[in-house]
Amino acid sequence: MTLQIDTAQLLNELETLAGISDAPAPAVTRIVFSEADRRGRAWIKDLCARSGLAVREDAVGNTFARWQGSDPNLPAVATGSHSDAIPNAGRYDGTVGVLGGLEAIRSLQRAGFRPRRSVELVLFTSEEPTRFGIGCLGSRMMSGTLQPAAASALKDKDGKSLDEWRTAAGFHGGLESVALPSGAYSGFVELHIEQGPLLEENGSNLGIVTAIAAPASLRIIIEGEGGHAGGRLMPGRRDALCAAAEITLAVETAAKSTGAIDTVGTTGVCDVFPGAINSIPVRVRLEIDVRDIDAARRDSVLERIRAACGEVAARRNVAVNLEMINADPPAQSSPAIVEALERGAARHKLSCKRMVSRAYHDSLFMARIAPVAMLFIPCRGGYSHRPDEYASPEAITHGAVVLAEALAELAR
Amino acid sequence: MTLQIDTAQLLNELETLAGISDAPAPAVTRIVFSEADRRGRAWIKDLCARSGLAVREDAVGNTFARWQGSDPNLPAVATGSHSDAIPNAGRYDGTVGVLGGLEAIRSLQRAGFRPRRSVELVLFTSEEPTRFGIGCLGSRMMSGTLQPAAASALKDKDGKSLDEWRTAAGFHGGLESVALPSGAYSGFVELHIEQGPLLEENGSNLGIVTAIAAPASLRIIIEGEGGHAGGRLMPGRRDALCAAAEITLAVETAAKSTGAIDTVGTTGVCDVFPGAINSIPVRVRLEIDVRDIDAARRDSVLERIRAACGEVAARRNVAVNLEMINADPPAQSSPAIVEALERGAARHKLSCKRMVSRAYHDSLFMARIAPVAMLFIPCRGGYSHRPDEYASPEAITHGAVVLAEALAELAR
Repeated sequence: MTLQIDTAQLLNELETLAGISDAPAPAVTRIVFSEADRRGRAWIKDLCARSGLAVREDAVGNTFARWQGSDPNLPAVATGSHSDAIPNAGRYDGTVGVLGGLEAIRSLQRAGFRPRRSVELVLFTSEEPTRFGIGCLGSRMMSGTLQPAAASALKDKDGKSLDEWRTAAGFHGGLESVALPSGAYSGFVELHIEQGPLLEENGSNLGIVTAIAAPASLRIIIEGEGGHAGGRLMPGRRDALCAAAEITLAVETAAKSTGAIDTVGTTGVCDVFPGAINSIPVRVRLEIDVRDIDAARRDSVLERIRAACGEVAARRNVAVNLEMINADPPAQSSPAIVEALERGAARHKLSCKRMVSRAYHDSLFMARIAPVAMLFIPCRGGYSHRPDEYASPEAITHGAVVLAEALAELAR
Repeated sequence: MTLQIDTAQLLNELETLAGISDAPAPAVTRIVFSEADRRGRAWIKDLCARSGLAVREDAVGNTFARWQGSDPNLPAVATGSHSDAIPNAGRYDGTVGVLGGLEAIRSLQRAGFRPRRSVELVLFTSEEPTRFGIGCLGSRMMSGTLQPAAASALKDKDGKSLDEWRTAAGFHGGLESVALPSGAYSGFVELHIEQGPLLEENGSNLGIVTAIAAPASLRIIIEGEGGHAGGRLMPGRRDALCAAAEITLAVETAAKSTGAIDTVGTTGVCDVFPGAINSIPVRVRLEIDVRDIDAARRDSVLERIRAACGEVAARRNVAVNLEMINADPPAQSSPAIVEALERGAARHKLSCKRMVSRAYHDSLFMARIAPVAMLFIPCRGGYSHRPDEYASPEAITHGAVVLAEALAELAR
């Protein structure tokens, strides 16, 4: 069997999807359940249907497009990723795994391959945490990691609930129906851009992910005392933004203090209330992301941040409320799928490198109910989550064809 | 002549106006040209018309309600303030001067007073800088401080221009028509809550403002390098929010470093782009307010902030662009109006204290085209620009009656 990727069509589809966005090109913004997200989903579902895949959606919008196997009672093999995008992101994060996964399936169809197991393309809801402050929403629920009651309690920053959003987006039914039984899939492989610079620096065609790092997310609410910027004198001020500034710098210091190159800490959200030039900030919300491949080392960083919050709160006489949004354990890849990917790469004479993923992926949660692995392709400069995110046509083609080889092996 | 303030009616009107808001009670949000601002203006104009005042509006929405004097060719005496409110403000800032000014006029009407000079109530557009980043927009233009071309160039943070906003709000005509000639008013008196704690601490009924401090506003744009929070390692990061945090703390340090109690420095705005938990901040906009009663000392604080920006930019390899939005000179009150207010207070056996205003007021700009003074009433705890802003019925009544006494003296 010789597999051929239709690179022109795949690039064209990536471009079309990038145009379904709430930000002007080259930026892409597709926040879950927004108009753009919904239009993107509809377009992807239509593509899947045109390739003869049977499409179903669950109560939270996870979408499954199935190519039925000759033995449909066997657990299926799955691939997929997400199509939502943070504000002002690029066009490859997630979408390469969705559209590249679809093209992998089409290449198998074109080659006359007949799978024994069904092959499913999965489009996960809200891999990005933008709307509800929690990433991998769909795969957390699918894997039973996030319980229906906890999911129902999720609200966006304006207080609008997940239930309101999903209903408005046309997804109905009980959230308890989202979780899949362990064994539903015999394997899950996710194709994704690296979102880091290592493959490019190494000159490797592909990365095979053997483990996904352990990410933790914090939300910190600082409450001080507001007032008119002219009327309140400096002594005795309880400025929430000054306290937040110290905590932001403490996050950076804590992440650097481990001395390990794999520790990262980022304050990505700093919302100031009331946010007027002549008003002392009374409340600030910080959202912080800490990752490491070593869970204990990561937790030591969290502990340092917690200590800094306590120190700042006492010294500045402000209230600092720290909430751990999530602190997920790392996941290990399935050796069998890693090896299948390596055999696929070898068949196409592509170099590949075993590596760790420091970014969050739906695979982290799919690992709880199925054997998983991830296939990374290089992205320019390691840039991601920004408009100039870029993966070359060659890299995308390599990713899709090796994914197709692995799916064929796993579906036999 | 015995003047009687109708406290019940005035409080009722303050409450009604507070209900015209884009925030739930007790908070008040009335950003200039918003639906709430427009409804508030319409309601105030209607009140004025019902008191027999002739209402006109200029091209930027400054509103003038005239009680015609027996010698209408003489320059009028004016009072007034603003009705716009920053996000989540209280109900007294500005509105006490507008509705209290109207009640002062009505009390003179009820007492049978016949003014020789016309008495005008002025409602200034956008005293608050929320929409366009510049405070006292209406009085700056009325006094010729802000030129029509510069005003036309103003845009909100979404790029929508002042011209677009004012046209949508129903204000038309050339902006060059807004400036008033020097001599248009023989005097201007503004009633306002103190927005600081001194009157309450002193047990004084009223404050008579002899000078308004010199405020300066800065906008600082920091541009670093974004990327995925998991994918970019700590060394070599150019995180715009970490740089902004250092600058925010430098503003606080610079304001405290003068050793003078009258120096204040506040970072009230910190907008982060893209503002997602898993994305390294690529751009941050800070807006900073620095005030002092001593212009040279204030400028030394600005210089320290500028130096800190340069140091942070170099050390963190980020671009820091500092724009001085405005740096206005202080204003001195008219001794004649100060004394008229003091005589008015004495007639009602109210204690008063001469003081400096550290808050921005339209009077700062009206001082360029007319003799001015301000009359302060205490507000609880010195709190302002927050929902629990409070002035007592007695304080409001004292302010209105002494204002009426002074207007009568100045209009004779």
